[in-house]
Amino acid sequence: MGVLSEGLTQILIPVAAFIGLGFALFQWFLVSKVKVSGGYGDYSGYKDRLINEGETEEGVDAHAVSIKCAEIQNAISVGATSFLFTEYRYLGIFTAVFGVVIFLFLGSVKGFSTESEPCTYNTGNICKPALANALFTTIAFFLGALTSVLSGFLGMKIATYANARTTLEARKGVGKAFITAFRSGAVMGFLLAANGLLVLWVSINLFKLYYGDDWEGLYESITGYGLGGSSMALFGRVGGGIYTKAADVGADLVGKVERNIPEDDPRNPAVIADNVGDNVGDIAGMGSDLFGSYAESSCAALFVASISSFGISHDFSAMSYPLIISSMGIVVCLITTLFATDLFEIKRVSEIEPTLKRQLVISTVLMTAGIAMVTFFALPSEFTLFNFGTEMSVKNWHLFFCVAIGLWAGLVIGYTTEYYTSSAYSPVKDVADSCRTGAATNVIFGLALGYKSVIIPIFAIAIAIYVSFSLAAMYGISVSALGMLSTIATGLAIDAYGPISDNAGGIAEMAGMSHEIRERTDALDAAGNTTAAIGKGFAIGSAALVSLALFGAFVSRAGINTVDVLTPKVFIGLLVGAMLPYWFSAMTMKSVGSAALKMVEEVRRQFNTIPGLMEGRAKPDYATCVKISTDASLREMIPPGALVMLTPLIAGTFFGVETLAGVLAGSLVSGVQVAISASNTGGAWDNAKKYIEAGGNEHAKSLGPKGSDAHKAAVIGDTIGDPLKDTSGPSLNILIKLMAVESLVFAPFFAAHGGLLFKLF
Amino acid sequence: MGVLSEGLTQILIPVAAFIGLGFALFQWFLVSKVKVSGGYGDYSGYKDRLINEGETEEGVDAHAVSIKCAEIQNAISVGATSFLFTEYRYLGIFTAVFGVVIFLFLGSVKGFSTESEPCTYNTGNICKPALANALFTTIAFFLGALTSVLSGFLGMKIATYANARTTLEARKGVGKAFITAFRSGAVMGFLLAANGLLVLWVSINLFKLYYGDDWEGLYESITGYGLGGSSMALFGRVGGGIYTKAADVGADLVGKVERNIPEDDPRNPAVIADNVGDNVGDIAGMGSDLFGSYAESSCAALFVASISSFGISHDFSAMSYPLIISSMGIVVCLITTLFATDLFEIKRVSEIEPTLKRQLVISTVLMTAGIAMVTFFALPSEFTLFNFGTEMSVKNWHLFFCVAIGLWAGLVIGYTTEYYTSSAYSPVKDVADSCRTGAATNVIFGLALGYKSVIIPIFAIAIAIYVSFSLAAMYGISVSALGMLSTIATGLAIDAYGPISDNAGGIAEMAGMSHEIRERTDALDAAGNTTAAIGKGFAIGSAALVSLALFGAFVSRAGINTVDVLTPKVFIGLLVGAMLPYWFSAMTMKSVGSAALKMVEEVRRQFNTIPGLMEGRAKPDYATCVKISTDASLREMIPPGALVMLTPLIAGTFFGVETLAGVLAGSLVSGVQVAISASNTGGAWDNAKKYIEAGGNEHAKSLGPKGSDAHKAAVIGDTIGDPLKDTSGPSLNILIKLMAVESLVFAPFFAAHGGLLFKLF
Repeated sequence: MGVLSEGLTQILIPVAAFIGLGFALFQWFLVSKVKVSGGYGDYSGYKDRLINEGETEEGVDAHAVSIKCAEIQNAISVGATSFLFTEYRYLGIFTAVFGVVIFLFLGSVKGFSTESEPCTYNTGNICKPALANALFTTIAFFLGALTSVLSGFLGMKIATYANARTTLEARKGVGKAFITAFRSGAVMGFLLAANGLLVLWVSINLFKLYYGDDWEGLYESITGYGLGGSSMALFGRVGGGIYTKAADVGADLVGKVERNIPEDDPRNPAVIADNVGDNVGDIAGMGSDLFGSYAESSCAALFVASISSFGISHDFSAMSYPLIISSMGIVVCLITTLFATDLFEIKRVSEIEPTLKRQLVISTVLMTAGIAMVTFFALPSEFTLFNFGTEMSVKNWHLFFCVAIGLWAGLVIGYTTEYYTSSAYSPVKDVADSCRTGAATNVIFGLALGYKSVIIPIFAIAIAIYVSFSLAAMYGISVSALGMLSTIATGLAIDAYGPISDNAGGIAEMAGMSHEIRERTDALDAAGNTTAAIGKGFAIGSAALVSLALFGAFVSRAGINTVDVLTPKVFIGLLVGAMLPYWFSAMTMKSVGSAALKMVEEVRRQFNTIPGLMEGRAKPDYATCVKISTDASLREMIPPGALVMLTPLIAGTFFGVETLAGVLAGSLVSGVQVAISASNTGGAWDNAKKYIEAGGNEHAKSLGPKGSDAHKAAVIGDTIGDPLKDTSGPSLNILIKLMAVESLVFAPFFAAHGGLLFKLF
Repeated sequence: MGVLSEGLTQILIPVAAFIGLGFALFQWFLVSKVKVSGGYGDYSGYKDRLINEGETEEGVDAHAVSIKCAEIQNAISVGATSFLFTEYRYLGIFTAVFGVVIFLFLGSVKGFSTESEPCTYNTGNICKPALANALFTTIAFFLGALTSVLSGFLGMKIATYANARTTLEARKGVGKAFITAFRSGAVMGFLLAANGLLVLWVSINLFKLYYGDDWEGLYESITGYGLGGSSMALFGRVGGGIYTKAADVGADLVGKVERNIPEDDPRNPAVIADNVGDNVGDIAGMGSDLFGSYAESSCAALFVASISSFGISHDFSAMSYPLIISSMGIVVCLITTLFATDLFEIKRVSEIEPTLKRQLVISTVLMTAGIAMVTFFALPSEFTLFNFGTEMSVKNWHLFFCVAIGLWAGLVIGYTTEYYTSSAYSPVKDVADSCRTGAATNVIFGLALGYKSVIIPIFAIAIAIYVSFSLAAMYGISVSALGMLSTIATGLAIDAYGPISDNAGGIAEMAGMSHEIRERTDALDAAGNTTAAIGKGFAIGSAALVSLALFGAFVSRAGINTVDVLTPKVFIGLLVGAMLPYWFSAMTMKSVGSAALKMVEEVRRQFNTIPGLMEGRAKPDYATCVKISTDASLREMIPPGALVMLTPLIAGTFFGVETLAGVLAGSLVSGVQVAISASNTGGAWDNAKKYIEAGGNEHAKSLGPKGSDAHKAAVIGDTIGDPLKDTSGPSLNILIKLMAVESLVFAPFFAAHGGLLFKLF
């Protein structure tokens, strides 16, 4: 047994969660001190954007600006809330139906018998009936879905609460604006991390009231939590991604390319939809996504632990190791946040990106010490782990290395992503330079950059996998994933910072604020593009580790001890699995393309038929554009969602667990590459465009200014990158995770009744 | 024993090869009857392209045109020959060095001992020393390399011999031109198929003089033939691909986009390089590639057979089953060709594509009957096959199904490719339609199309693998690959037809022939784009099967019986292997991009500095552009080549055979997807552009004409597709095959001395 007693563990985890919640609320309180005045009526600020009287600040009426910002913020918030509620109605139906499917499939494993069974791993003891596991898995699924939705929704709320405040603070300087945007990101990060931990801890303790000493059944049921979290994340990412990019691409193609008006110009009918999209896609979708990763890696680790010596000897503290790591993560991230908000102050634009990057390093270094503490206090010095039918003996310091290597691999991925997507380094500069010869070379160079950017992350992931796999089998992989996600609060803070700044810039433009303010928000936004790419890198890297851990848990639970590529069943699974990311991307990209075409037609129609729109004398019809995005995303998220949700069910039921194992491995190794390259290509194109627009050095000036041929080529690249980086790419990590966790949950059913087709012939 | 005696087998195989050679020469003779007159001086026809006196045919002096065509053809032929000779000099050095590496590595397996050893599989007997195997493998490697180079070179020769003839025949009508182009393609197809078969047969018989009854050693050494073939193919495809696309992209970006002059206009300085490129890339590169696939699948099948009952019982006819299939293939393709050249006549443009498609169906149907014959005559009714340490009992009709399913899977892949890349169907029309809203939506739709186009081919390959794997283990896979390649002569004929027509169009433009002639060659070329895509589909599909077969042979030879994904060694191999196609594509695309940038600068320079060039009064400096392409391709082919050649050596030597097995499986399942999607995306963009240019229906007219915004967007897509479809995509199937065959050849070394890193720790 480790040093930490069960009682103390039961206190420390909720305390850490409450500290996280308290810190989030405190940050929210600080953000709320920025006052946004004004009547919250319909947004109609377009009319008086040139009004210029009364108390002026930089030539603009301060009070009028504040009112206008409030109005725009309100319009965005109302739009985002309304979309999310519509989306959640659909998801509610899905969740109810899928909950029934889970219950029926798992209940049927032992023919809905209510009799207790001998345990599988904890031999000699009696475990609860399969029917109880079916019921509790379904409950855990609902809890996971609810927490996931809550994570996304709260994130959206704080983001839409913060964006106008960031705009207004930008009048006082870039430092103030940065703090506001960053604090708001931190609210989201801490809320999500604390919530996820708390709900999981409460669920385990409640389930324990029924399960008692049957930890196999208990932690088997808990896996439903991961499935619930990730299935909501899938629809959130895909639906939100289609919403935001349909609006963004549509707005840009007509506004920037055809009509030559600036980004976020209030005359553009799609501008509100675009800003709403940032909040429902990049914020709510990403929140659900990372919550899903967190929930899944915890569930995978808990499941493997439950069938290892921790579970069999009922060592609660050791069992709770994954939760204690997350608890420590909250504390570490809290300290890390202070470095950005209180211990240093940003005075120049050039300090933004280094400050954000420093967050990554500080949290990683502190967390390494934290992991060491947790490992030595919570774990016995030696124990045995389940390893596909055999047992392996492991020392506690082995696990320290597993968690730490995941953590540091995350840092390597983050820095690599930054290198390939920030305009400070040569890759993006090369892409910008290739715009000289037009859009075609820009696209060729951008695609090549994305392909190249997978090399280092893949090696980092491979090393993390090799080390943690060798030291502690699949348990090692799952805690390695947790290590990468342990600094999730900081990761989310710097990630959410991006769309908040983006929106702040949009509001500045729409409110008709001065060029200087827009420049400040643009600088915040450029750093945000890079941090968003870093966040996506983290999400993908952790997804790879998580899915491997889930894959291992699935294989263990399905009772197979080898997944041999040299058998036809496995190999065809591998081949088809490697194809799924392409199928999925084809669907999502086509959806964005089609929705964008509709958006373009509507925006063109409004410009052509509404008299005085271009002159700013008439109001565009924002609502129709919002409706196009909403309808498209709700309709188009179903086919890719069905592909992901049905594949494991079909493969498992008709082809059996070996083929399904192949599918999971194939989609994992192929999906990671597609996801990383798509995200980085998109990020690089976006920043290449911003590099030309900013004209920060001689080279950039020679390519610009806005409207030059090179700039036009860069805009085309940016537009192509939109669905890659914000729809397909980030959805793919959910694809690989979700198929794995779904297989894990349904494993007993597949093992009992699967492989119908092969049984038939 | 089967019905066929050894003596008869020894007669039938060379007879079939000589029939193939004879038929190829006869087709060449028929092509040569089209007379191309004129002094073969320097190409300088640009001056008098508007001369319009004397005997006129459609307003152009027929004799002058003929002379001009001859001159241009000569310029292209001289350029291509000169490039290939330069390339072959580099390849000669590589081959010599790598031959030494093979000898040293394989010789070191038993410490260069000259003593005979007990056989591994044919237990109780004595086999030749490992040193002999090292020597003969090296010799086979040289023979394979030589045959590969010869295949490419002869293909280039007939293509450059035929292109002006096709142009001249186009004056008589589209049917005549079609026959000329198609016959020339057939020359290449039959030369390659017959040559490959003959050299392999001769080598086996010569090696047998030394090896006698040691068939293990004999067929182990023969695997070098596949390695030689494919390593030349790699450099041919990559070097040729960079050459042609640097020229093509460079010519288009300045000529079509900036200067608004037609494609292949003689005023464009890069036009000769572009046309040379088609012949060294699409023709010579593809010839080497398909020869490589053919050689490798034969070697894989022979190797597995040699350690199965055929080899142990010394049943030569059954052993030669792969060669007999290829022999039958030559006869079947000969009959098939007659359907296009003699039995039917093309009178209308609309008949071209159906005629080419019919070739595929006819050859597949006839070959199915052929396979049945061969199978029942050559094979004993029942025999045992080696299956990773165990033996399985197989009936001859099992093998019939293995070969046939490969053959039919090829047809399915061909038809799917046609559906996604021909402008006759909705996918390409949708892509063309998306050009309405600009280049960005065109690219998004094109990428989505490519991703989607992998679905059916992957299922076709998966089913072929499952069936043939289940029926006859790895031997089943390798004969399945041979089945797909058995109609290689027909496949190559319709594939080579594409670039020949493309060049014919270029010559028509450069010779200043009338609009009508150009329309006819354009129609030939549009069908050629689709058949080129079909050919690439075949190449990729067969590469997938071949590499799996080689992978199986490697695993057998390395003495491992399972490749378990649940071990860290294998899994990291899988992950890194899946990354390699991206790394490789990044290199090749970046190379094309950089070379194209240089080309653009040179073309711009010439337009800006040579007075009278735009007006057709001065001659461009073609030679400098040829030099840029040559230098770029020779320099840039080295890094991707090194990546492919060194990966198996490094993985095997330092990480051992399990990790290498993972790398091979990973690169296979990932590379197939990247290759198919890249080829089809590129083909679709090209044809979407042609669809708009041709304006064949109301929809197409609404997007056109040439120079419209939609057309400009389509040109951008086409340019992006160039490196995807002609450089990265087709090179990737060599990547997966070559790494597999190299692993197979070096397997004894890795098994004896590999895994240094893991041994060290």
